Amino acid sequence: MDPERLRQLLEAVARGEVRPEEAAAQVAAATGGTAPIADAVLDHARDARTGVPEVVLGEWKTAEQVAAILQGLASGGRGALATRIAHDKADAVRQLVPEAEHVAAARALVIRGAPRPHAGTIAVVCAGTSDVPVAEEAALTAEFLGATVRRVTDVGVAGLHRLLGRLPEIRSADAVVVIAGMEGALPSVLAGLTDRPLVAVPTSVGYGVGVGGFVAMAAMLSSCAPGVTVVNIDNGFGAAVAAVRAARPRQ
Amino acid sequence: MDPERLRQLLEAVARGEVRPEEAAAQVAAATGGTAPIADAVLDHARDARTGVPEVVLGEWKTAEQVAAILQGLASGGRGALATRIAHDKADAVRQLVPEAEHVAAARALVIRGAPRPHAGTIAVVCAGTSDVPVAEEAALTAEFLGATVRRVTDVGVAGLHRLLGRLPEIRSADAVVVIAGMEGALPSVLAGLTDRPLVAVPTSVGYGVGVGGFVAMAAMLSSCAPGVTVVNIDNGFGAAVAAVRAARPRQ
Amino acid sequence: MDPERLRQLLEAVARGEVRPEEAAAQVAAATGGTAPIADAVLDHARDARTGVPEVVLGEWKTAEQVAAILQGLASGGRGALATRIAHDKADAVRQLVPEAEHVAAARALVIRGAPRPHAGTIAVVCAGTSDVPVAEEAALTAEFLGATVRRVTDVGVAGLHRLLGRLPEIRSADAVVVIAGMEGALPSVLAGLTDRPLVAVPTSVGYGVGVGGFVAMAAMLSSCAPGVTVVNIDNGFGAAVAAVRAARPRQ
Amino acid sequence: MDPERLRQLLEAVARGEVRPEEAAAQVAAATGGTAPIADAVLDHARDARTGVPEVVLGEWKTAEQVAAILQGLASGGRGALATRIAHDKADAVRQLVPEAEHVAAARALVIRGAPRPHAGTIAVVCAGTSDVPVAEEAALTAEFLGATVRRVTDVGVAGLHRLLGRLPEIRSADAVVVIAGMEGALPSVLAGLTDRPLVAVPTSVGYGVGVGGFVAMAAMLSSCAPGVTVVNIDNGFGAAVAAVRAARPRQ
Amino acid sequence: MDPERLRQLLEAVARGEVRPEEAAAQVAAATGGTAPIADAVLDHARDARTGVPEVVLGEWKTAEQVAAILQGLASGGRGALATRIAHDKADAVRQLVPEAEHVAAARALVIRGAPRPHAGTIAVVCAGTSDVPVAEEAALTAEFLGATVRRVTDVGVAGLHRLLGRLPEIRSADAVVVIAGMEGALPSVLAGLTDRPLVAVPTSVGYGVGVGGFVAMAAMLSSCAPGVTVVNIDNGFGAAVAAVRAARPRQ
Amino acid sequence: MDPERLRQLLEAVARGEVRPEEAAAQVAAATGGTAPIADAVLDHARDARTGVPEVVLGEWKTAEQVAAILQGLASGGRGALATRIAHDKADAVRQLVPEAEHVAAARALVIRGAPRPHAGTIAVVCAGTSDVPVAEEAALTAEFLGATVRRVTDVGVAGLHRLLGRLPEIRSADAVVVIAGMEGALPSVLAGLTDRPLVAVPTSVGYGVGVGGFVAMAAMLSSCAPGVTVVNIDNGFGAAVAAVRAARPRQ
Amino acid sequence: MDPERLRQLLEAVARGEVRPEEAAAQVAAATGGTAPIADAVLDHARDARTGVPEVVLGEWKTAEQVAAILQGLASGGRGALATRIAHDKADAVRQLVPEAEHVAAARALVIRGAPRPHAGTIAVVCAGTSDVPVAEEAALTAEFLGATVRRVTDVGVAGLHRLLGRLPEIRSADAVVVIAGMEGALPSVLAGLTDRPLVAVPTSVGYGVGVGGFVAMAAMLSSCAPGVTVVNIDNGFGAAVAAVRAARPRQ
Amino acid sequence: MDPERLRQLLEAVARGEVRPEEAAAQVAAATGGTAPIADAVLDHARDARTGVPEVVLGEWKTAEQVAAILQGLASGGRGALATRIAHDKADAVRQLVPEAEHVAAARALVIRGAPRPHAGTIAVVCAGTSDVPVAEEAALTAEFLGATVRRVTDVGVAGLHRLLGRLPEIRSADAVVVIAGMEGALPSVLAGLTDRPLVAVPTSVGYGVGVGGFVAMAAMLSSCAPGVTVVNIDNGFGAAVAAVRAARPRQ
Repeated sequence: MDPERLRQLLEAVARGEVRPEEAAAQVAAATGGTAPIADAVLDHARDARTGVPEVVLGEWKTAEQVAAILQGLASGGRGALATRIAHDKADAVRQLVPEAEHVAAARALVIRGAPRPHAGTIAVVCAGTSDVPVAEEAALTAEFLGATVRRVTDVGVAGLHRLLGRLPEIRSADAVVVIAGMEGALPSVLAGLTDRPLVAVPTSVGYGVGVGGFVAMAAMLSSCAPGVTVVNIDNGFGAAVAAVRAARPRQ
Repeated sequence: MDPERLRQLLEAVARGEVRPEEAAAQVAAATGGTAPIADAVLDHARDARTGVPEVVLGEWKTAEQVAAILQGLASGGRGALATRIAHDKADAVRQLVPEAEHVAAARALVIRGAPRPHAGTIAVVCAGTSDVPVAEEAALTAEFLGATVRRVTDVGVAGLHRLLGRLPEIRSADAVVVIAGMEGALPSVLAGLTDRPLVAVPTSVGYGVGVGGFVAMAAMLSSCAPGVTVVNIDNGFGAAVAAVRAARPRQ
Repeated sequence: MDPERLRQLLEAVARGEVRPEEAAAQVAAATGGTAPIADAVLDHARDARTGVPEVVLGEWKTAEQVAAILQGLASGGRGALATRIAHDKADAVRQLVPEAEHVAAARALVIRGAPRPHAGTIAVVCAGTSDVPVAEEAALTAEFLGATVRRVTDVGVAGLHRLLGRLPEIRSADAVVVIAGMEGALPSVLAGLTDRPLVAVPTSVGYGVGVGGFVAMAAMLSSCAPGVTVVNIDNGFGAAVAAVRAARPRQ
Repeated sequence: MDPERLRQLLEAVARGEVRPEEAAAQVAAATGGTAPIADAVLDHARDARTGVPEVVLGEWKTAEQVAAILQGLASGGRGALATRIAHDKADAVRQLVPEAEHVAAARALVIRGAPRPHAGTIAVVCAGTSDVPVAEEAALTAEFLGATVRRVTDVGVAGLHRLLGRLPEIRSADAVVVIAGMEGALPSVLAGLTDRPLVAVPTSVGYGVGVGGFVAMAAMLSSCAPGVTVVNIDNGFGAAVAAVRAARPRQ
Repeated sequence: MDPERLRQLLEAVARGEVRPEEAAAQVAAATGGTAPIADAVLDHARDARTGVPEVVLGEWKTAEQVAAILQGLASGGRGALATRIAHDKADAVRQLVPEAEHVAAARALVIRGAPRPHAGTIAVVCAGTSDVPVAEEAALTAEFLGATVRRVTDVGVAGLHRLLGRLPEIRSADAVVVIAGMEGALPSVLAGLTDRPLVAVPTSVGYGVGVGGFVAMAAMLSSCAPGVTVVNIDNGFGAAVAAVRAARPRQ
Repeated sequence: MDPERLRQLLEAVARGEVRPEEAAAQVAAATGGTAPIADAVLDHARDARTGVPEVVLGEWKTAEQVAAILQGLASGGRGALATRIAHDKADAVRQLVPEAEHVAAARALVIRGAPRPHAGTIAVVCAGTSDVPVAEEAALTAEFLGATVRRVTDVGVAGLHRLLGRLPEIRSADAVVVIAGMEGALPSVLAGLTDRPLVAVPTSVGYGVGVGGFVAMAAMLSSCAPGVTVVNIDNGFGAAVAAVRAARPRQ
Repeated sequence: MDPERLRQLLEAVARGEVRPEEAAAQVAAATGGTAPIADAVLDHARDARTGVPEVVLGEWKTAEQVAAILQGLASGGRGALATRIAHDKADAVRQLVPEAEHVAAARALVIRGAPRPHAGTIAVVCAGTSDVPVAEEAALTAEFLGATVRRVTDVGVAGLHRLLGRLPEIRSADAVVVIAGMEGALPSVLAGLTDRPLVAVPTSVGYGVGVGGFVAMAAMLSSCAPGVTVVNIDNGFGAAVAAVRAARPRQ
Repeated sequence: MDPERLRQLLEAVARGEVRPEEAAAQVAAATGGTAPIADAVLDHARDARTGVPEVVLGEWKTAEQVAAILQGLASGGRGALATRIAHDKADAVRQLVPEAEHVAAARALVIRGAPRPHAGTIAVVCAGTSDVPVAEEAALTAEFLGATVRRVTDVGVAGLHRLLGRLPEIRSADAVVVIAGMEGALPSVLAGLTDRPLVAVPTSVGYGVGVGGFVAMAAMLSSCAPGVTVVNIDNGFGAAVAAVRAARPRQ
């Protein structure tokens, strides 16, 4: 940590302008260590180790926990992201962290920070209208990590011509995220039509035997087209991280 | 039963040329009743009720049972069919019923009989080389029931262009049987490209999460393309029966 | 598209009477192309390819999305259908699309359009009172697609005589849709009593080991009576499409 | 134990005509205690507690273990039974226990003993030829326990008329065991046609989604006809015990 | 049907005191035929065929449907029963059928009718406090069918001594219903301690791997103690019917 | 039971100061017998048999049942504990039993009693913030049973360095409870780094393929590190009991 | 296709030195079309479309089919690969295609062809000795596709220090394939320690609850470490293709 | 490592009496490091870290791999153990490592070494004769790790009195391993009767719904008796390790 900034920070603590916990978190964030807060230990070094900072998985956390972790993570100046945030919880968090922006289409909260290095171009392709929320989670995450995103929506296999017309956009991206529910056939078809790294995301859109997305997931893993890799159901976030790992220029 | 034929049959019994059991089976077959043999009760009236005669499912039956039932069913003069017959069992049955022909590609035994009314044209489409045995079971069954069969093989979705070139043959059939293992995506793609009745057959070709064909089956049932109907895994026989029900002219 | 109608449409756009998006959808609907609207790409050519127009699966879509797609699909003049619409969502859609009729028994919204060619007669047979909503979805869909429907209700296997008295109505239809929950035995019994194409629909009516309808579905797929084909749980819509494919006269 | 018999036994031990272990087992069998042998503790009091003696489940035991337990159990004079004995193991056991009879159709070994009190009449009804081995296990067990057995074979639901003709035999039994694989519909149909205690046995006859008999089992448990009770897959033995519990006269 | 009663009924119809539908149901109930009402076909002959009248499974039916079927069934004078009725639905039904009594502990509605012949004594044994609602459903059903019921509650295997003290009451009943959730071990232990017909009911009381009662059900089916028969999860009703079939005196 | 205390108790009953039921429970608690209350039979001897008193599993019980059992158990003077108590139910119980303390973080109610013997030191290690409620249930239970607890929170394997820094605290405990959801990898890693008895608790924190905690549970059971033992999903209570059994000094 | 080479080929056909089928396959391979052989349609254009040529999945194919497809694919001069070849089948294929080399450690057959462009460096990391066959399949595939491979073996999480010592080799690769059975924890740990694209391969090494590799697969999909992508169980081939897609330089 | 021993070892290498690889393994074993051999990296420090040395899981390893790892592990002088060794593989390993003893009843190979510190007394309790192989694996492992073992065999819950007579032996052990297949009820019953640490091992003894041991495992995890901990199916080895962790005196 820059000594001058450290000195200023400590003086602010001395003046009572900054609480000691917040100062501790800022120091940890800047130096890549870990920072314990209530019920959590922030892993500020994750960005350095993996190229992707810690992100909050909001589903089972209280609004207070999400708020505290978001603030802790953002204290390093590079912003912070929380996913799987229901509408009500988003409102509660924003009472505590007004600088957090609610991206409802992606069910996420984001605090914008300093720009990250460009991480390539990623095509986010989704099969149906019902899959859009997962696609938006992937797109927002990829953009947060520095990528340019191209959205290709509602091109499921029941009407193949919709997909074929969009192939050039997909083939020229650096990596492709493909999102589908129901029988999950789109990644198999697309993997046979492009040479790009391809991450398939099954969604929980389905009913009867397909309820919960397990069939879509299993179908993607069983793909007869080689090169399809798969993440967990509805895990748009994880797919974006994997796509960025593949797309960004090697340093 | 034609009285003259009955009289002749009984005289043959009297002369010792025909065993009584065999005569009983022939009478039952001709009159549409049931005929008990060892461990089984033949349902000769099924053809009249459903348009499809009883067929032997050979998998768990002994060679002796298969032979006895085949002979009983064939005694009516319209032939008989047994499916899911392993190679060794086929040999053993043919020792007992030499007139039965072994169609190894379909894992079946068939006794040819009087021709049945034409039951339309059925396209049997299969995704990969490994699915061929199920396709041949479907094709043989459809032919046994009076249909004309068109075989379209190895047109899986990983190389879509292979399928697209065969569409005219498929679209002009009266009904379509589509066979696929792995992720089972072919019926979804094809159902969006034809207006024909379409029966999907998942196969047990798959490994890992796809082992046993359950994923292919579930994917077909979850199809986003309406009009796909599904039969049990590897059930080429049942698919052919369903396709014949749909394809044959209404009487 | 009829040039005169096109000209009039464009003039209406010029006069501000028709929004450009709506005009685009009408052109696409009339010419069989695809038409992108918010979050969706309408597949107007599906009717020509498959004999069945695109239908809205409403379960995961917002009321706004359902309304927009219904209007887009109906712009071609042949009506539109949306299934799996909960009561509240139906009300919200009808605020936006007052011409949509809510068929509550079938959980569907329908916009009536120009009549379609007659698609044969379909018997919709259901095992119990609890299965009626799925049966009504099938019946409404079949009627929307041009078929005549016969309803045969509450004829489950625990009281066989109820079924046997209705057999003539069922046997004389062009195709049969059979709907059952719990142990799903009705299609097996019925397939042994008719020669018609038969589509079985498992329902989610069941509890304990039968919860969700998986047992009914698996039992139907395991049927010892050949010719039973199966669609997804509660998929009355898909069963009707398959029945219409089999029942309608070959053109 | 009768003192005179005990005295004679001990004298035989003294003369070396009876091994001590065998004498210990005989004493235990006669007095209703437990008797430890290698790797097992015989439960001679089970007959008094439950009305059914201990029976050997042979599947995972070595031939030596089966032989030792059979002999121990039979030492009380009322015979002994071992089920799920493969053909090879039966031969090996009979080398050690020549008085054991191999009932191949039931995959069982039996040592006949003193007759048991009459345990009523039990109808053993089975759906198909492939289910016969389980039916024979049930029939043999019921006979071993003192019941009279009526066999009704190959009356599955795909040809209902076969069943309807046998109803009087079934309805007049004291209890009914119903055996079926595949979709397991027979118990539902039969439970609606009789007032007798009814035990359903799913069999492992099935393939694809029905492999292993789980679908038949679940369908029986989901039966819409009340009064169906179910035992484990292929458990003809357990079904016979339950039927005997219900059928035998109350003492 | 008694001609005098029929004449009186028809006169009442003529006078407008009885609606024709109601009269039709009464005739059917008295003559053992079927009676169609809205969405249902009453099976009045079931009592004669199976010894148990039709009972309403209320879970997926509307209050209106439950009310109509209850009234139709009760029209024969022997009362009627509806199970799996949530509290709110019970209130709604009782608005329509005030003579129905709500037995909240059993989640059931009952209309008392003429007494039925005595059906023996049944012990209803349950493992824990949480299993009581299922036990009460079984007890109410057994009483409705004419049996005397003994309740033995909270005697699970974690404290065996609680069970052992109640054995005499259990052993002297004509049949036993055993109810347990979690690991479902109680029927195994009890089946080794009595010779009575024994019906095990798994309950949905369980969490984690035991959620929904599937583990309890499977454990009961896997019981090492012979003679345990099993019904569906939470199916107290079906267990009572099976126990009555076994317990009632043979006529 | 101390005769003097018994005499005083009975006199209090005679004076109407103590209800008979309460007195019965106190006698049972003091003498180690069982005590029947409404819908339950208290097992006061469990503490003597197993070293752990009966604890109330509150999930499916009514507030009235929880209150009655808590009071009955506490009547012996050593306190009482109820787990899996939702917030609303806790309030309702406390209306009836004001001396019960609501520990919201552990979803539990506790009545403090006489101190128990020291039961060793237990480390409660949890992988993520979302797992804290289960960890707190384990910690509260262990403390209730006399153990000293060390909490180690948010040390999941995605940031290994967080765990490595806490190893000395863990290694010096008498037993370790390890709590994780998602992929459940933490017990495997930790079991390779300590020689302490280790009980793993999977949590229901997970989504998609991991929903409900089954994957975490199965992964822990499949651990390649020997010595990992597992309890049911979210069963912090059971894990604490097992840890106390291992940690407490042998008497 | 080069006209001179085509002319020479046709002259060889004319001289009887090359069979017409073989010539047809060579032309197709060179021109990127499809080539039908017995039971298969070769997809020579796949390399151009996806950057990876068609590879033979040998598991369900006969030796004759594998041989024919291998030869067809190799006719283009760039070699061919067949995976999942049991030892016996490998011998049978090599009788027909002696130029195929059997790589037993990878259960594969390979025909070496012209070198492909360099596809980067891939680390193949595996958890245990039992996982080596899958690792070798991945390594051979990656090398066949032009990559350099680093093998890191037996570094499972039960002994973390084995992994930590190899991190530099892993971190400096272009992509990482991680292979593990049992609880499948290694990818989670490794994904937190590197920024490389990471493809996880579950193996079927496991028993009990982990049998078949489903637990390892599900654990990898549930990973708390973002960026883990997963392929089917034992699919070393698919993982290598995905890794090559990510690792090779963008052209 | 003792310098004198090291010097001698190196001199032996120099003389060609000891191969360098073997010397490297001996050094590693003595110093607690890791030692790479073909396809494996021995973890000699595991004993120091966890109190239990590395043990070979033999199921998927070749005889050559098992032999090499056994020798490597034994080079430290404290013996070595390999589990899950089929009879044929045991013979093959003993050709290579004659000092390994085959304990057939436990399906294991053991090389005896220097005695380990006493690890307490462990009761190994098993439900049936078929569970003995798993019990013997547990017993052998516990003895290898220094414990005294008491075997209590064939005391399943169908005959409770067999168990009750052995309780004193069980209660006085330091820890208890309980082994059962089928419905897996024994640990629940036993956990209510002892205060000892208790590790339950489900076995794969079961059929039908219980096949593979999953039901026994799930029942144990669902136990209503607190304090039951569970290991993987048939994992006698892991249970013994866990029992030793709990039983051995704290150092």
